[in-house]
Amino acid sequence: MEIDFSTIKVIGFDADDTLWVNETYFREAEERFAELLDGYETKNKIDQELFKMEMQNLERYGYGIKAFVLSMIESAMELSNHKVSNVVLSKILDIGKEMLEQPVVLLEGVETVLQKLQSKYRLIVLTKGDLLDQERKLERSGLKKYFHHVEVLSDKKEENYKDLLDHLQIKTSEFLMLGNSLKSDVLPIIKIGASAVHIPFHTTWQHEMVSEEEETNEYITLNKIEDVLTFLKD
Amino acid sequence: MEIDFSTIKVIGFDADDTLWVNETYFREAEERFAELLDGYETKNKIDQELFKMEMQNLERYGYGIKAFVLSMIESAMELSNHKVSNVVLSKILDIGKEMLEQPVVLLEGVETVLQKLQSKYRLIVLTKGDLLDQERKLERSGLKKYFHHVEVLSDKKEENYKDLLDHLQIKTSEFLMLGNSLKSDVLPIIKIGASAVHIPFHTTWQHEMVSEEEETNEYITLNKIEDVLTFLKD
Repeated sequence: MEIDFSTIKVIGFDADDTLWVNETYFREAEERFAELLDGYETKNKIDQELFKMEMQNLERYGYGIKAFVLSMIESAMELSNHKVSNVVLSKILDIGKEMLEQPVVLLEGVETVLQKLQSKYRLIVLTKGDLLDQERKLERSGLKKYFHHVEVLSDKKEENYKDLLDHLQIKTSEFLMLGNSLKSDVLPIIKIGASAVHIPFHTTWQHEMVSEEEETNEYITLNKIEDVLTFLKD
Repeated sequence: MEIDFSTIKVIGFDADDTLWVNETYFREAEERFAELLDGYETKNKIDQELFKMEMQNLERYGYGIKAFVLSMIESAMELSNHKVSNVVLSKILDIGKEMLEQPVVLLEGVETVLQKLQSKYRLIVLTKGDLLDQERKLERSGLKKYFHHVEVLSDKKEENYKDLLDHLQIKTSEFLMLGNSLKSDVLPIIKIGASAVHIPFHTTWQHEMVSEEEETNEYITLNKIEDVLTFLKD
């Protein structure tokens, strides 16, 4: 199946790791977390247990930095057999606070792409995670002016996308999604009959990885976001 | 100034403590928190310090249960001079988990009002707080079917309401907001030129209280939500 770019009217952009750097900050936070718990377990075990805790809490807490901090705290207590000190726990809270204050670093080519496409298409941001944090990042990014609409979703499954396109009265044939996550930005979009372009980021969170069977050839993968201009009107 | 109900086409409902019980759960959580820290400070001091911590973290963490839990943890460490045990901190995490799983208890008259108004007006939910948690509560409430649109805002200030009415293409003269918080549901609505009805809940969070000077006579206060039917078509 080939994508018919001529019918596209609305382009949805994922935000984290598509418009700006995000996953890198989580990886750094995980490194710091492992260092703080250094005496209790091996780095490998600490990484694994934190990820398990995040998955265990995912339905309860959802995505985002606050959820991540709560899982780090719970995991630190478990990994240390409830011996971890208040000092270490305070440092974990600090990791979260620093993450919330990280500067927004735009990925290469993003602003050029938005500038070129803004007059020809309706551009929207579709992101998941913490509402306040995502709004704040968009504000800090300076990119808000390019977008007609911004939607923070609690998750990015087929249902969420369907509801959103319905609500914004966008036909699937008119919609193209760009994002770095096969699982969240590409596969559910294809399943609902819309189009997607995959632009991988160098780091992918384990939870966002897909097995090979789930991959299809119904989407394009591009190395850099600017390459999308080749297929679109500008 | 009187409200002209004849021009109203869209009614916005606040959710927490307007459609269903919420603040009560926070008050109960605060009680439990104070009991857990009983040995370190007086109940009064514990209450005060927790509230201070929440205010200190408000801009950073926003509203909602996850933000509240992070502030309880930080406050417990401070109140105990960093001596609080992992056992107590685990119990604080449990308070949060239980809050997230609370059943949704509808307030009296809510379903009747929604049933009667749904065919004559566009009904929308306008709430602030944690996106995932609010979506989950609406799902559990069984009220989703009555609403044309649901919007979770990161805050409820004039700007947030203006942006939303713009985006949904609703004129201020057509919009009526119903809610329990003068600060969040009534005063900013009046300031942007739309109409508001105040339906107080028996408990109000300190942060949502307004001083007497801020009150105006440009809104109606009703004892129970069903009384609004007197003013509207049904």
